[in-house]
Amino acid sequence: MDRGLLEKLKRHEVSFHEIDKILDPDTAIKLRRTAVSELTGASLSHTGDFTLDLEKVTKRNIENMIGAVQIPLGIAGPLHIKGEYAKGDFYLPLATTEGALVASVDRGSSVITAGGGANARIFDDKMTRAPVFRANSIIGAKSLIDWVSSNFIRLKECAEKTTRFGKLLSVEPFIAGRSVYLRFSYDTKDAMGMNMATIATDSAVDLILSENDVELIALSGNMCTDKKPSAVNVILGRGKTVSSDVIISTDTIHEKLKTTPSKMFEVNYRKNLLGSARAVSLGFNAHAANIAAAMFIACGQDAAHVVEASTAITNMEIVEEGLYCSVTIPSLPVGTVGGGTDIGAQHECLSILGVGGAGDPPGVNAKKLAEIIVAAVLAGEISLIGALAARHLAKAHAKLGR
Amino acid sequence: MDRGLLEKLKRHEVSFHEIDKILDPDTAIKLRRTAVSELTGASLSHTGDFTLDLEKVTKRNIENMIGAVQIPLGIAGPLHIKGEYAKGDFYLPLATTEGALVASVDRGSSVITAGGGANARIFDDKMTRAPVFRANSIIGAKSLIDWVSSNFIRLKECAEKTTRFGKLLSVEPFIAGRSVYLRFSYDTKDAMGMNMATIATDSAVDLILSENDVELIALSGNMCTDKKPSAVNVILGRGKTVSSDVIISTDTIHEKLKTTPSKMFEVNYRKNLLGSARAVSLGFNAHAANIAAAMFIACGQDAAHVVEASTAITNMEIVEEGLYCSVTIPSLPVGTVGGGTDIGAQHECLSILGVGGAGDPPGVNAKKLAEIIVAAVLAGEISLIGALAARHLAKAHAKLGR
Amino acid sequence: MDRGLLEKLKRHEVSFHEIDKILDPDTAIKLRRTAVSELTGASLSHTGDFTLDLEKVTKRNIENMIGAVQIPLGIAGPLHIKGEYAKGDFYLPLATTEGALVASVDRGSSVITAGGGANARIFDDKMTRAPVFRANSIIGAKSLIDWVSSNFIRLKECAEKTTRFGKLLSVEPFIAGRSVYLRFSYDTKDAMGMNMATIATDSAVDLILSENDVELIALSGNMCTDKKPSAVNVILGRGKTVSSDVIISTDTIHEKLKTTPSKMFEVNYRKNLLGSARAVSLGFNAHAANIAAAMFIACGQDAAHVVEASTAITNMEIVEEGLYCSVTIPSLPVGTVGGGTDIGAQHECLSILGVGGAGDPPGVNAKKLAEIIVAAVLAGEISLIGALAARHLAKAHAKLGR
Amino acid sequence: MDRGLLEKLKRHEVSFHEIDKILDPDTAIKLRRTAVSELTGASLSHTGDFTLDLEKVTKRNIENMIGAVQIPLGIAGPLHIKGEYAKGDFYLPLATTEGALVASVDRGSSVITAGGGANARIFDDKMTRAPVFRANSIIGAKSLIDWVSSNFIRLKECAEKTTRFGKLLSVEPFIAGRSVYLRFSYDTKDAMGMNMATIATDSAVDLILSENDVELIALSGNMCTDKKPSAVNVILGRGKTVSSDVIISTDTIHEKLKTTPSKMFEVNYRKNLLGSARAVSLGFNAHAANIAAAMFIACGQDAAHVVEASTAITNMEIVEEGLYCSVTIPSLPVGTVGGGTDIGAQHECLSILGVGGAGDPPGVNAKKLAEIIVAAVLAGEISLIGALAARHLAKAHAKLGR
Repeated sequence: MDRGLLEKLKRHEVSFHEIDKILDPDTAIKLRRTAVSELTGASLSHTGDFTLDLEKVTKRNIENMIGAVQIPLGIAGPLHIKGEYAKGDFYLPLATTEGALVASVDRGSSVITAGGGANARIFDDKMTRAPVFRANSIIGAKSLIDWVSSNFIRLKECAEKTTRFGKLLSVEPFIAGRSVYLRFSYDTKDAMGMNMATIATDSAVDLILSENDVELIALSGNMCTDKKPSAVNVILGRGKTVSSDVIISTDTIHEKLKTTPSKMFEVNYRKNLLGSARAVSLGFNAHAANIAAAMFIACGQDAAHVVEASTAITNMEIVEEGLYCSVTIPSLPVGTVGGGTDIGAQHECLSILGVGGAGDPPGVNAKKLAEIIVAAVLAGEISLIGALAARHLAKAHAKLGR
Repeated sequence: MDRGLLEKLKRHEVSFHEIDKILDPDTAIKLRRTAVSELTGASLSHTGDFTLDLEKVTKRNIENMIGAVQIPLGIAGPLHIKGEYAKGDFYLPLATTEGALVASVDRGSSVITAGGGANARIFDDKMTRAPVFRANSIIGAKSLIDWVSSNFIRLKECAEKTTRFGKLLSVEPFIAGRSVYLRFSYDTKDAMGMNMATIATDSAVDLILSENDVELIALSGNMCTDKKPSAVNVILGRGKTVSSDVIISTDTIHEKLKTTPSKMFEVNYRKNLLGSARAVSLGFNAHAANIAAAMFIACGQDAAHVVEASTAITNMEIVEEGLYCSVTIPSLPVGTVGGGTDIGAQHECLSILGVGGAGDPPGVNAKKLAEIIVAAVLAGEISLIGALAARHLAKAHAKLGR
Repeated sequence: MDRGLLEKLKRHEVSFHEIDKILDPDTAIKLRRTAVSELTGASLSHTGDFTLDLEKVTKRNIENMIGAVQIPLGIAGPLHIKGEYAKGDFYLPLATTEGALVASVDRGSSVITAGGGANARIFDDKMTRAPVFRANSIIGAKSLIDWVSSNFIRLKECAEKTTRFGKLLSVEPFIAGRSVYLRFSYDTKDAMGMNMATIATDSAVDLILSENDVELIALSGNMCTDKKPSAVNVILGRGKTVSSDVIISTDTIHEKLKTTPSKMFEVNYRKNLLGSARAVSLGFNAHAANIAAAMFIACGQDAAHVVEASTAITNMEIVEEGLYCSVTIPSLPVGTVGGGTDIGAQHECLSILGVGGAGDPPGVNAKKLAEIIVAAVLAGEISLIGALAARHLAKAHAKLGR
Repeated sequence: MDRGLLEKLKRHEVSFHEIDKILDPDTAIKLRRTAVSELTGASLSHTGDFTLDLEKVTKRNIENMIGAVQIPLGIAGPLHIKGEYAKGDFYLPLATTEGALVASVDRGSSVITAGGGANARIFDDKMTRAPVFRANSIIGAKSLIDWVSSNFIRLKECAEKTTRFGKLLSVEPFIAGRSVYLRFSYDTKDAMGMNMATIATDSAVDLILSENDVELIALSGNMCTDKKPSAVNVILGRGKTVSSDVIISTDTIHEKLKTTPSKMFEVNYRKNLLGSARAVSLGFNAHAANIAAAMFIACGQDAAHVVEASTAITNMEIVEEGLYCSVTIPSLPVGTVGGGTDIGAQHECLSILGVGGAGDPPGVNAKKLAEIIVAAVLAGEISLIGALAARHLAKAHAKLGR
């Protein structure tokens, strides 16, 4: 180890990222880790334990790398899914440090599978980016909107030049006084597609600016909306709009969940509907974010998109056969290419689900992944609502030591 | 490897979790991984690469373990913080697969540190759990609320029996017809505290049920609210309510961000305020969830709590010296003990920040962690708003190959 | 009529309000009406038909008066109420131009009364005003909050000096960076109390400014929140937090509503709960605003407060006897003194309800009015949900010619 | 007076509405009024003072009529508007009992007019109705949506059969599990159009039911959304989506509002944007509901639609010339025919604005009315923000005696 360089690093005479230009990844990582360890006094031995492909991840996934954290990976299932894209029995990879979560999804999967499996359907599919412009007045705002409406084809050509797969589907305008938000929606196939959408929109913005008397304020004006809970995504969708449902028999509920359809109905009613209404929540579910987070981390998705997944609506209704259960996620941004999907274990987790890499035709893998995730969330919801109905929640946590 | 047992596992004659009772963790993990690999055809070699302490994680963090995923870890900083608990230069561990994120926080940290550092303050601190009860009518609902008001001391004793550290602070009632939600708030010291709050509330519920003619419907009635975006958490807080601010000079903005205070002000205004208002969003920020997700995963926090962090409010104002910038997170549930905080690299990441384990006095480590995270979010916001103002966003992503 | 003055008025050489200083109310009103009529060509004969006490209304309720509009007044009931303040049979005055509304409330009243009457209870009662201050930084924000906490008694004295009835109950702080919102809550007895709260808070603000290094930005900072739909009012309440419920027998539903408990349950479930959740609405009801608007206009309330009333939650549950129905209004600002309550017919409408003027002890009349309104809303909800369940809605409107 | 009938009325042996079948309107009204007066002991002399056209209002606007309430009517203006439909100077009729309101709008009008007038533009225009259906599962939900998409022309024919003016513009589907909400949007010309939309949708529903295996649960499923604050209306619009803006010079602000552009900017920023964000409000304005309520009541609009108007966004920006101000109302349901628009003084108020009755071509009068209202709201906002900036609010209320 180059102690001279290390000392410079520790004194910030050389910045953390500069050394990547002169050292190979492995050496740079070690040097940074040593610097951080010596600066803070923290032992970083576990952090240095990793087997990632450094060429790949340092180029595409991380800067100033010092190592890795390992997240325990559990498996739930089989979960039988009757989707349009996901058909059959699936084993769900869940990366989490929250005890009881894998067990809960596993139990829910068993209940669903006993009921013949969960339906799953995609209702909408797109990725958005919404730049914000400033016009001189609302008159200029209206002119811009009229121009966009008349020049959609040209915007489409302009945007699609930048991408091999992405297709511009629509541009929806919104105003707040002279601020104009143009929400570009793209079909991004198997990619989650946010960067594709950003780059394509950046290109379309140039065309807009060249022919309209407006100023671009920001390439993203939060009408997209990315990684913030927002009604626009609940109502218009972003990523996949997807739903899953199943009918569980009264017997299965008795046997596997130790409770009754009417008790589960009431928990869902007073907690997920009335309770969320009373809390003025955008999420009408029990713990959709838990399942989404664990599957996102396992499968190399963008973990911050758990925010969008948390707006799921869980619905339970008493029917003749027992209990009708559904989960609807209005906005689930997922992909099977790009982001973290190509990293070692993450790619393997996608492979467990049969969705590693690009689909044939393009787009089917990401759609299949979305169907699997919503069905997994359904499993998690059924299990937790069942546990609450049977008043097992506190006991489960106490027993599992969390 | 016991092929017989493997085949039984594959045919579900033995369930995934049953083998934990008869095999040591390492063998059970391998057997499950092999079963999943053979059932799905997925190669799982990377998944098997890990150095976690199996005794610990299989007992407390995961069920049906088959291995681990590795998340690349980068470092940003130093970030100078002038908090009540966090004082000095901090190096921020960020675990992410999203290229450009670490670089962005690093850049923002450099800007803040050049400006003399960011203030950070805790404004509220508590963990909540809100069971829902059904009374016979609103008259019964009112009786229950009156009873709670008169019996707070007894509820407190009852709840606190179950925990060494937790203290019951208040119980706030809400109704929707005859449904009554009692929001229990606890000081949980260095623990994020959700399980502590759940178990303590479960005990208090028994007292309530023994003296009131009401029925418990669910130990959590979503007025808590956990892992769903909700106004009740924005308004009343859950976890830490925390804020950070800094004034950056016009020169620093020119030099380091290649833009001006007025451009950054306008981006924040039209995007984070007007844009989020127009989208009916609960998050008035640019990408708080990104920084929260990366720090949560690095530091063994519950990744699903990124949802709460995403409701941050970012504020930028033009002042004489340049630009006043602040981030306020009304609800940031974090801890330095429990959950994933004790796992190898995760614990090391907490140590980098000087908050590994319990604080002295109890509670100061979790508070310090919250101050650091909000300041890190401020760094991320300043960097991204700066990039948008300079119209660098699409270019940054294109260059970093995401 | 003074044609010379009229011409000056028409040419804006004399402003509309200046003539009040030199003419008696009646003459000034006629002159303004004539000017408007001649300027716009509109005949204003109906506008001139009124019998209001001009001395009173021109001093307290209106400026630049030109006449009045007459709103048709209908009566519904009797509605049997079993409140804490409202006990017995009530006849509901409803001022509206929307056909079918009075009939709907009348029908609902008949259903409730047949069921033995509706319970009604007040769960909270206060009026708020929340000034916003700017501190130098979050450190100053924290100092201000600490100061407020230590000086509540002095703030209370200062605020209460300005009012004969109002009592300061609490001051709750909220921050967004260095912006500090202090939500003052008052018991305002029989007055709706917004002006009382404004004036008292203005006085308390002077004390704050004299001892803290902060600047007052606005006496109302929207955390109040007045006349905007907001979660803070849903969660913390503003005006009365009030609820009403009733159980209706299956027979009554058959006879009077021509439908069944299970159909009504399902309409309420999919419309008022799931539907409002899907629309990301703050109102989980069918048409609470209709009833509130008609009663507010009849009873001299501030019509803009219909906004708050519209956040009601309507709940229907199948029970053994038939259908449990409740309405909860978290924020219902009403009063029986001040505002328009002292005007001719408006005062008479309050008298119909037995709440004209101040109560003895002070406050009971406004509380009684709130109980009556929430029960009236319950009647309206039951009737409309019943009509939807029986698919009578379009027919009713077609028949009533709206 | 028929005392025998009166006694029967008082004993409910004859219901309030039955006597309309046997008596002329005037006699029936008197009899009901007398009954209510004797039952409650309230003197109802003022209530009996009215000059409404009884044939008309008892047929279309009210049931169980007992009289009328008179609302004082004030005038503000002239307000100079440069709209697409509203061009020139307008005098604003405001019916209210809230002192200071007319004066405030008058002052704001004077400020705007001094600045050369306010722009006004319509950005969207439609009325919606959204029935909710139950399918057997999400598979049936998807089938229904596909069917709607393939049969839009037939639905349009079916819906438009029921109306002379209404045109079906689109049908947008939303799901929550197997619940399907179809949001029908209509151009309803000069009518506010809710009943037109309801009746037309009822007809289209019959076609849907005849060819799909789904059940209608309610003709309105709250995705409309009517008279509840909801994001779907903010985002997709309902009624008119309309905006108004103006630039006010620094001199005008000094002279007429006694404050400065930067102070007004700061009030709007910390109150209407940050404050509303912190309150989790759907309304980013100061008191839009006040102006809407007063103009709605004056002009025979549905007063409960004030709820929608309250979601306005007020925006103020410092510009070279002084202060840019805008108001955007995403959802403003108004009409010039139907409802209360044909009643005496109400019709006269519409005539003051030049929009009494149907426009030529149909629709222009309602659009013009919307432009006038949004400009009036802008006037009200400018005045109140100016008063807050100058700290005149409490003083104004104290002086005007409210």
